[in-house]
Amino acid sequence: MRLARLLVAGQARWGMVEDDRIKLLSAAPWQDPKPLGGSIPLEGAQLLPPAEPSKIVCVGLNYRAHAQEMGKELPSEPLLFLKSPQALLAPGGTVVLPPDSQQVEHEGELALVIGKPAKNVKAEEALGYVLGYTCLDDVTARDIQRREKVYARAKGYDTFCPVGPWLETDIADPQNLTLTLKVNGEGRQQGSTSDMIFSVAEVVAFISRIMTLMPGDLISTGTPPGVGPLRPGDRVELTIPEIGTLHHGVARPEDQG
Amino acid sequence: MRLARLLVAGQARWGMVEDDRIKLLSAAPWQDPKPLGGSIPLEGAQLLPPAEPSKIVCVGLNYRAHAQEMGKELPSEPLLFLKSPQALLAPGGTVVLPPDSQQVEHEGELALVIGKPAKNVKAEEALGYVLGYTCLDDVTARDIQRREKVYARAKGYDTFCPVGPWLETDIADPQNLTLTLKVNGEGRQQGSTSDMIFSVAEVVAFISRIMTLMPGDLISTGTPPGVGPLRPGDRVELTIPEIGTLHHGVARPEDQG
Repeated sequence: MRLARLLVAGQARWGMVEDDRIKLLSAAPWQDPKPLGGSIPLEGAQLLPPAEPSKIVCVGLNYRAHAQEMGKELPSEPLLFLKSPQALLAPGGTVVLPPDSQQVEHEGELALVIGKPAKNVKAEEALGYVLGYTCLDDVTARDIQRREKVYARAKGYDTFCPVGPWLETDIADPQNLTLTLKVNGEGRQQGSTSDMIFSVAEVVAFISRIMTLMPGDLISTGTPPGVGPLRPGDRVELTIPEIGTLHHGVARPEDQG
Repeated sequence: MRLARLLVAGQARWGMVEDDRIKLLSAAPWQDPKPLGGSIPLEGAQLLPPAEPSKIVCVGLNYRAHAQEMGKELPSEPLLFLKSPQALLAPGGTVVLPPDSQQVEHEGELALVIGKPAKNVKAEEALGYVLGYTCLDDVTARDIQRREKVYARAKGYDTFCPVGPWLETDIADPQNLTLTLKVNGEGRQQGSTSDMIFSVAEVVAFISRIMTLMPGDLISTGTPPGVGPLRPGDRVELTIPEIGTLHHGVARPEDQG
């Protein structure tokens, strides 16, 4: 099942994507929703980030080859950081390059949304707490990240978290997905989730021992190698075939409305 | 005015503290609340964290003497990090020491809650976006912080953000407050907000250029010197005289209910 969040008559709604239509739901997927009866065409729908996170938790350096390209040692435990919820950007939205960075980069990732509260969950049970999977670009001001060491600012600017286009709930094995990120049609990142250092289940279990996970929380699982610069006018496509393609643009603040 | 958040018949409510009673409000302070007519005694009231944050943004190393005790250079810009909202702990609550840290420390701080959306605010106008001021203990697993460099885990465990007891809205000059933290009655931290490297107004303005600040967001402004260990059974008191005293306990997980 594909679960989308969208704007309908000025209101945020959840819905089920079926073929070329979205069937509207009465509430969020974790709130025991009922079908509302109505549906709207997928084409032209105003999709929103398919999450309502109390927090966005990300894992750094979770692919060996990316840790190598960053010149970092492999972590012995997942390295966590948080992104500001105001960084969320709807599918098709535009990342705004802040004037205080000269090196903003893409990091295409497999992300997931939590479906029920999770605290001290075991890895063997962790995937049962996942509502669905999606694509996320963990946009990063690399120069600020290198200078500050801590990540909150470098990864926390408004619009630095494009996510979507929807949640795919039927992923049999999250460790067997390919991820491709293209900029202006040119391949930049390519990876398989089979190369993760810590599996999705291990990541969810690990975080749940530190921070209680809430329904709607968004977790991103790290980026494969090939990170690179974003420039004004770039068109980014992040594809995980079993899920779909997340598109976003890039602009300077002065080009924004 | 003192604004408290409290549990009334199982529901979170805001109220105004007047003498020994709390007058209940119909909504959050930023939602144009009306008095509900009722009041309850302050003594015995179940106070909650006086914030409803979409994010908790903190500043590291904002007092010269604390940067020195940590062996760090003075930052040229505020060093931001985020705490998990599930770390929030009500006044009088108990910090739970996680088994994976052997060195959990207190960091008493002046904090504030945002009253209206703030984006690209100037420092001269920034205090107009502050709803009120409170006390916050930025509890930190120092061993994990030193090892990981990034702060999200070290400062993000559930219960690692005691805050309160309420918001004081009438603070003429937030740079002229004294802060005292005692553990079991013994003085540990003592400082004046006049020693901050970046003023409250500068911090709010700086964050608003990166992340849009929302009503209810919680910002903590850094800790003066004297940070030290928390042990099971400790009683912590953090006092800013113009605001009040935040109390919290400390326990091992196995001592919790």
